Amino acid sequence: MTSVLCTQLAPRIADLPYNRELSVAAVRGAAGRGAEVIVLPELVTSGYRLESVAEAASVAIPAEDPLFAEWGRAAPEAVVVGGFCELGADGRLYNSAAVLDRGELVAVYRKTHLWDSEKSLFTPGAEAPPVLDTSGGRIGVLICYDLEFPELTRILALEGAELLAVPTNWPLLPRPAGERVPEVVVAMAAARVNRIAIACCDRSGTERGGAWNEGTSIVGPDGWVRAEVDTAGIARADLELSAARDKRLTERAHLFADRRPELYGPLA
Amino acid sequence: MTSVLCTQLAPRIADLPYNRELSVAAVRGAAGRGAEVIVLPELVTSGYRLESVAEAASVAIPAEDPLFAEWGRAAPEAVVVGGFCELGADGRLYNSAAVLDRGELVAVYRKTHLWDSEKSLFTPGAEAPPVLDTSGGRIGVLICYDLEFPELTRILALEGAELLAVPTNWPLLPRPAGERVPEVVVAMAAARVNRIAIACCDRSGTERGGAWNEGTSIVGPDGWVRAEVDTAGIARADLELSAARDKRLTERAHLFADRRPELYGPLA
Repeated sequence: MTSVLCTQLAPRIADLPYNRELSVAAVRGAAGRGAEVIVLPELVTSGYRLESVAEAASVAIPAEDPLFAEWGRAAPEAVVVGGFCELGADGRLYNSAAVLDRGELVAVYRKTHLWDSEKSLFTPGAEAPPVLDTSGGRIGVLICYDLEFPELTRILALEGAELLAVPTNWPLLPRPAGERVPEVVVAMAAARVNRIAIACCDRSGTERGGAWNEGTSIVGPDGWVRAEVDTAGIARADLELSAARDKRLTERAHLFADRRPELYGPLA
Repeated sequence: MTSVLCTQLAPRIADLPYNRELSVAAVRGAAGRGAEVIVLPELVTSGYRLESVAEAASVAIPAEDPLFAEWGRAAPEAVVVGGFCELGADGRLYNSAAVLDRGELVAVYRKTHLWDSEKSLFTPGAEAPPVLDTSGGRIGVLICYDLEFPELTRILALEGAELLAVPTNWPLLPRPAGERVPEVVVAMAAARVNRIAIACCDRSGTERGGAWNEGTSIVGPDGWVRAEVDTAGIARADLELSAARDKRLTERAHLFADRRPELYGPLA
């Protein structure tokens, strides 16, 4: 079993020192609970509603920033996936996620599907999302809106991801009474049709008039929600990730072998 | 507005005369309620748990069978999509769906993703599912398990489908208390990420020890369930299908324009 924990936080807009402390403390707290995979929200270092490139640049950090070593020291045995506002070596800004494994930075993913006004601030990532063999399993990384492109969840599953770690900031929108956050419905379906687990870490708080769905949820490889966020901002589930390795539904039905790629030409 | 109606039926196994009458009466009833698009279950002519090729062949009918003209006469102003056990001109059996528009047979789709023991009975369709301009809108057709391949729902949406008509037989399986039928969750997600409506017509009854989820549901282009099946076996919703033509989420976010097909290579 793998203990997966999402820690839903409320970063302060453009307040890097505050957000550093907030995120390090959250990682330390998660590690203290024995979490083996820890997911933080999107853009946890910077906040979301950045109003200009200049403002985003003022809190952007490179992948070499000491913050990631701090996350690593705070959870030296775990995998940590968290979003940050990245200053690239090319001088551009990216909406990125850092992945640490046992204290070491093992990957930085740059969000490939930018949402709305993010397009004014960030450069979209040029590389497809990674799938990484980590101490916490084979993990794919997406960021927020990426999750809503079924091509991406499928590709990561085909590449053997057992768990997707998805830092998000889901803007609060009205939904019918009794319904789940819609992005969670999308995660449930992606988990079911690909038989993978998906851990979505949303954020909380309000920021420049905006709020979030606060929909942090961990979905199992069977497509059912295993944990929702509690009042302390924590969602935690123990997942049997090895279930994601077998795509057989019945003796004669198999999620991947039953695909008909020769009919999927118009997709790419 | 387009009036979409699914009529959840309990065909009798291998009883073609009974199932003819059942299906014709259901189409007539739906048309009498003013439905413009009528969806029947998968394999409504034959029942599902056919035990041998010989038994399936005994109730297989060609696309030229007079049943479809009967469906047409029963709903002369509507679109009708219903599943049947097809005897092909090649002598093979297919799990197919007939599409009638204003009384005329306009397409036969042969299920491309066969489920489990269907592989012993049927030949998988060689052609991708159709998208048809009909009097009830631009309609794509899938059958049951097809829906769980996100490639297919995406392709039909990219081809401009506003509504997917999905005859199904969803086997009854346990699910957590309070949860929707899992295939409906998949339909909700596919509707949301593609902004299309999806009308899934399940079946009812028991047959050779098996039952079904009886999960007939109509999902709107916003991804929310607009109608579930009532005690009479009817789900009906009036849908603004034109909403499916505009994939813009915000001024700067667009479900299709935001795709990054250059990153989706491994899919096909």
